[in-house]
Amino acid sequence: MVDVDVLERNLQRMTSSAQARGLALRPHVKTHKCLEIARRQVDLGAAGLTVATISEAEVFAAAGFEDLFIAYPVWASGRRARRLRALADEVFLRVGVDSVDGAETLGKALAGGRVSVLVEVDSGHHRSGVQPEAAGTVAAAAEQAGLTVDGAFTFPGHAYGPGRPAQAARDEALGLQSAAGALSGAGFPDSVRSGGSTPTAELSDASTLTEIRPGVYSFNDAQQVELGSCSWSDVALTAAATVVSRSGHRVVLDGGSKLLGADQPVWATGAGRLPDYPDARIVALAEHHATVVLSSDSSVPALGQVVRIAPNHVCAAVNLADEIVVIARGEPVDHWVIAARGTNT
Amino acid sequence: MVDVDVLERNLQRMTSSAQARGLALRPHVKTHKCLEIARRQVDLGAAGLTVATISEAEVFAAAGFEDLFIAYPVWASGRRARRLRALADEVFLRVGVDSVDGAETLGKALAGGRVSVLVEVDSGHHRSGVQPEAAGTVAAAAEQAGLTVDGAFTFPGHAYGPGRPAQAARDEALGLQSAAGALSGAGFPDSVRSGGSTPTAELSDASTLTEIRPGVYSFNDAQQVELGSCSWSDVALTAAATVVSRSGHRVVLDGGSKLLGADQPVWATGAGRLPDYPDARIVALAEHHATVVLSSDSSVPALGQVVRIAPNHVCAAVNLADEIVVIARGEPVDHWVIAARGTNT
Repeated sequence: MVDVDVLERNLQRMTSSAQARGLALRPHVKTHKCLEIARRQVDLGAAGLTVATISEAEVFAAAGFEDLFIAYPVWASGRRARRLRALADEVFLRVGVDSVDGAETLGKALAGGRVSVLVEVDSGHHRSGVQPEAAGTVAAAAEQAGLTVDGAFTFPGHAYGPGRPAQAARDEALGLQSAAGALSGAGFPDSVRSGGSTPTAELSDASTLTEIRPGVYSFNDAQQVELGSCSWSDVALTAAATVVSRSGHRVVLDGGSKLLGADQPVWATGAGRLPDYPDARIVALAEHHATVVLSSDSSVPALGQVVRIAPNHVCAAVNLADEIVVIARGEPVDHWVIAARGTNT
Repeated sequence: MVDVDVLERNLQRMTSSAQARGLALRPHVKTHKCLEIARRQVDLGAAGLTVATISEAEVFAAAGFEDLFIAYPVWASGRRARRLRALADEVFLRVGVDSVDGAETLGKALAGGRVSVLVEVDSGHHRSGVQPEAAGTVAAAAEQAGLTVDGAFTFPGHAYGPGRPAQAARDEALGLQSAAGALSGAGFPDSVRSGGSTPTAELSDASTLTEIRPGVYSFNDAQQVELGSCSWSDVALTAAATVVSRSGHRVVLDGGSKLLGADQPVWATGAGRLPDYPDARIVALAEHHATVVLSSDSSVPALGQVVRIAPNHVCAAVNLADEIVVIARGEPVDHWVIAARGTNT
């Protein structure tokens, strides 16, 4: 369920923060996968949407969103090639690329279709992305393959650890600066420099970046609270679970990993949190059950009582449900379909 | 995708093993959530199905399955009460109960509807379940509340750790023996004694148990291989992912936690395994990407190559997809809908 007032406040806060710094905001919709929320983000002034996969792009394109960035290096062979061509005919499509081979495959796949690319550079997260100094080589290959090179992007995912966001934001700026230099040297000046994640969004270097792509900020989650990115009052999405077993200060709730997802970074205090019992810890998570230990001076919820759980990673939790119950001032007022649930391909 | 020959062999092997020991087999369908596979299990002689939630029971009841056990202590208030009554009118329904309060709530909810219960006892997993010696008290409360008491059940989930299945199977037998004694003393002799999980299924004490409820054995997964419950040739379900980034002996595949689930017990070697590269390790798992390190003497898959991934926990992976691609001798031959995907309530 989503508290619509908290959601609205989260959307407005990020919009204002980006505007005040002259940064374009291109929210990542993999978090909510929900047309209603994406519409509100665009109405508030988002520059476009960021998506994770071709199938996620297809859902948002079919709903009328016209400016989409697939923020990963897509390998454009076989059916993927045909789908990218169809998307490029329909919307303004931008795609990530991080290798000469990938750029050539993408260029062949699109066969003159109008697609622009951003070169992904690795600013310290060490997942995908070329070294920033190599951005020019990939960009030249992309241009050679018939693609339009718009600039570079990075994901400072190494911000996900207590005390790490500030350094990750500095790494992000350095990586994009270096990439912009490499692009300029290869004949691509005035490029887009896109970064951002929720933990670094407020820390992004506005003199280097032109765009940020946070996703989680719309809902927030236990992980963001534990990272210090937000407080409990900023968590818009929670799951409702019932106490089904109880013994002393230990209760079992009927919500588990098939409701919340199983994400648990090593630094997390547990497998999710209970916003109404901030001292409680989820010590075990089975498919349909969370085992919770309450502090010795806490009240213990009764058998049958409904308790709110904030998942560790809200993007994973949303992708497990078919719809969101919209709550306004404590009452359910609407249902939103999670239109892009399960769009992995 | 599921290799249908491996699936069939897994189903037959467990059926034969249970039959040879005189144990009823009541497979847990939370693993596959798939009507076609449940039908095959019943055709092979399953005594009925085990399900995890009321909504999972509803899907299988609507498809004509007539004997269902909800293997958790259900808290039967509100809408749940009405749904349980409707189910009880339609099929033979058995439900778990592990407290006097839970039994009374269930009895009230069903108001004379014909439902039988098994008392859940804790044999060492320490999630839900009463102490075995207390099974008689819960059973008496259940009978008092108008329910039919059929026996006791346990889930030896503490088998999930290397070297632990044998001890967990002994604990399971001891717990069910003790529960049967307590039930007999309270006037419930000749009871069902139901246990089982995939790691303990072959080790269950057939002189104590009357029934086993394994689920994962139909597909198997990386976790079962690492526990020693099966070998790679017994893994029926894998996910296909493409190499999208490559650097030395490190590749990034475009399949992540939204495809595989994020389950990773502390003893796992990584976030899943590559059956065709048994020495490879998945060292990081993002929502849409797996970072894989191959051994220095291994061949490295090329950019664009498709690679099979075995998830750590197949129940979580299945619940993320809408359908299964059925493979026979390397070729796709059918699609099966994951009919009970997302049935959490």
